Amino acid sequence: MMNKAILLDKRPVGKPALTDFKFIEEEMPVPAEGELLLKTLYVSVDPYLRGRMRDTKSYVPPFELGKPITSGLVTEVISSGNTDFQKGDFLFGYLDWKEYQISDGKGLMKVDGNAASLSTYLGVLGMTGLTAYLGLKEIGLPKPGETIVVSGAAGAVGNVVGQIAKLMGLKVLGLAGTDEKIETLKNKFKYDQGINYKTTENLSLAIKEACPDGVDIYFDNVGGEVSDAVLANIKFKSRIIICGAISLYNDTEPALAPRVEGKLVINSASMTGFIVGNYADQFPEGIQQLTAWYQEGKLISSETIVNGFDQIPQAFLDLFEGKNEGKMIVKI
Amino acid sequence: MMNKAILLDKRPVGKPALTDFKFIEEEMPVPAEGELLLKTLYVSVDPYLRGRMRDTKSYVPPFELGKPITSGLVTEVISSGNTDFQKGDFLFGYLDWKEYQISDGKGLMKVDGNAASLSTYLGVLGMTGLTAYLGLKEIGLPKPGETIVVSGAAGAVGNVVGQIAKLMGLKVLGLAGTDEKIETLKNKFKYDQGINYKTTENLSLAIKEACPDGVDIYFDNVGGEVSDAVLANIKFKSRIIICGAISLYNDTEPALAPRVEGKLVINSASMTGFIVGNYADQFPEGIQQLTAWYQEGKLISSETIVNGFDQIPQAFLDLFEGKNEGKMIVKI
Repeated sequence: MMNKAILLDKRPVGKPALTDFKFIEEEMPVPAEGELLLKTLYVSVDPYLRGRMRDTKSYVPPFELGKPITSGLVTEVISSGNTDFQKGDFLFGYLDWKEYQISDGKGLMKVDGNAASLSTYLGVLGMTGLTAYLGLKEIGLPKPGETIVVSGAAGAVGNVVGQIAKLMGLKVLGLAGTDEKIETLKNKFKYDQGINYKTTENLSLAIKEACPDGVDIYFDNVGGEVSDAVLANIKFKSRIIICGAISLYNDTEPALAPRVEGKLVINSASMTGFIVGNYADQFPEGIQQLTAWYQEGKLISSETIVNGFDQIPQAFLDLFEGKNEGKMIVKI
Repeated sequence: MMNKAILLDKRPVGKPALTDFKFIEEEMPVPAEGELLLKTLYVSVDPYLRGRMRDTKSYVPPFELGKPITSGLVTEVISSGNTDFQKGDFLFGYLDWKEYQISDGKGLMKVDGNAASLSTYLGVLGMTGLTAYLGLKEIGLPKPGETIVVSGAAGAVGNVVGQIAKLMGLKVLGLAGTDEKIETLKNKFKYDQGINYKTTENLSLAIKEACPDGVDIYFDNVGGEVSDAVLANIKFKSRIIICGAISLYNDTEPALAPRVEGKLVINSASMTGFIVGNYADQFPEGIQQLTAWYQEGKLISSETIVNGFDQIPQAFLDLFEGKNEGKMIVKI
């Protein structure tokens, strides 16, 4: 039996393509003493991986050409030479895009398949949920009655931000790119309002009409012109959380935009880049809160699940077309 | 004897001109019961006044056409019907550009002409010093050993930021627009390094060479392309204080710039608009600290003093040409 792996074959120029990835088959790995053999069950595909495909400095090092891509995985322990883990345990970790792999167990975390479906640990009960919760709480400093706008509102992080903001007593406006997503925002995620930014001629005006008192918090997953329209509506002392900029990740030239300095100073507003990894000390509290809301039925898990190891690259590409509702996950 | 006043006659389009102001002579004002008669001694001219000449919403209301401009003034009490103030007191306040005026005393603050020269209360011991100190402290969160870049480094706020940053143990790079100012930065204000942004071909590279480990704090008084070059060099968790954007105040079209979202998220950096008025509860502590440094000779007062009431509009216009070193003040 051979083991499949997916390598980065070429650094994408502009929009990534299937040809940037290479499928290989290798010998089944054999664990050494003290090691685990892991079988991949679920693979998280995320916009930030695009950044790691570039050969430039970022908060995580770039992927190497000819080496496997890594992302968040839920795996099953097939055999264990490490007393911390047992055969049959389910583990979350940042691991290779391989069907099977060896690990020494470092950085892996047990997840409970009985408390929630395993894929949830890549979504609302994993880094995605933590990103939404900690980004909103730590940078957004939300207060009941305030108005928040979420871009990529039906996406992996966005839908959780919207749900949590409602739980915290905010008025929530979501921006998304299809009418179906707008319906989902309102009906499933309990957003107060939704705007389809693709079909709205004057987005800035539409946001003004939806938020006549202005925007206190903007949770941005998208960047680009959608953000310009939100910025035109920010209030005094507003907080802008830059969590992602998927609309810009495939740009080959730096995009130009209206300067923000003036808007920020006039409004005493702040714009802050958020990376969840900087808040690792708050993960336990965050997971506890997210799990409580989830178990009480107050926080819904939304996932787009694609089947098959071979589908991982395509699922990643589909993120840039907005084909996912909620978290995009590949089930192996 | 008639009283001179300066009114806003036209809203400037682009760069303000002398013709946007109107000098009038009016009857000498006569204080009613309980009122003060004030004689203007020193007038502060500031870049932010340009914003108030526009008929747009901002953190302070726009000036009205045909009404006097107001700014920070040091005045002398000529007669007082208010027991809180005596003839001969020197008062700071936001008052009209008039030689003499009436006040009920609200919002006025006594200043001590023996402790420091009176103009100092418009500069390093006034709002200018507070802006530098509180902006750096509250938004910059400076730590000894960190690297700060200051734009408009020889200007009113900038020179104080640089001096305080040195007192706090930071490595300080100043950006200014003439070789004379660069010399002043280094010799008078004790900046570690200075770069003339006007004569430097590749400013981003020059900043990189001056700050090889990157920039922890950027105190921005200027905005525009100078800022783009600094942003190219920011570090992980860097803080950007947007205190002013003088390079943009006269723009008639919103200027375009490389988008900042990506830079902010990759670096977990923040960009925050700072308005000193939001920190009024910290003014007493700030003034106490600034006064202590000043009296110990650790903080130098730098002023460009222009003489004559009639010179107020020209002094204001000269700010946009960078003709001031330190605080621009008109002595009446």
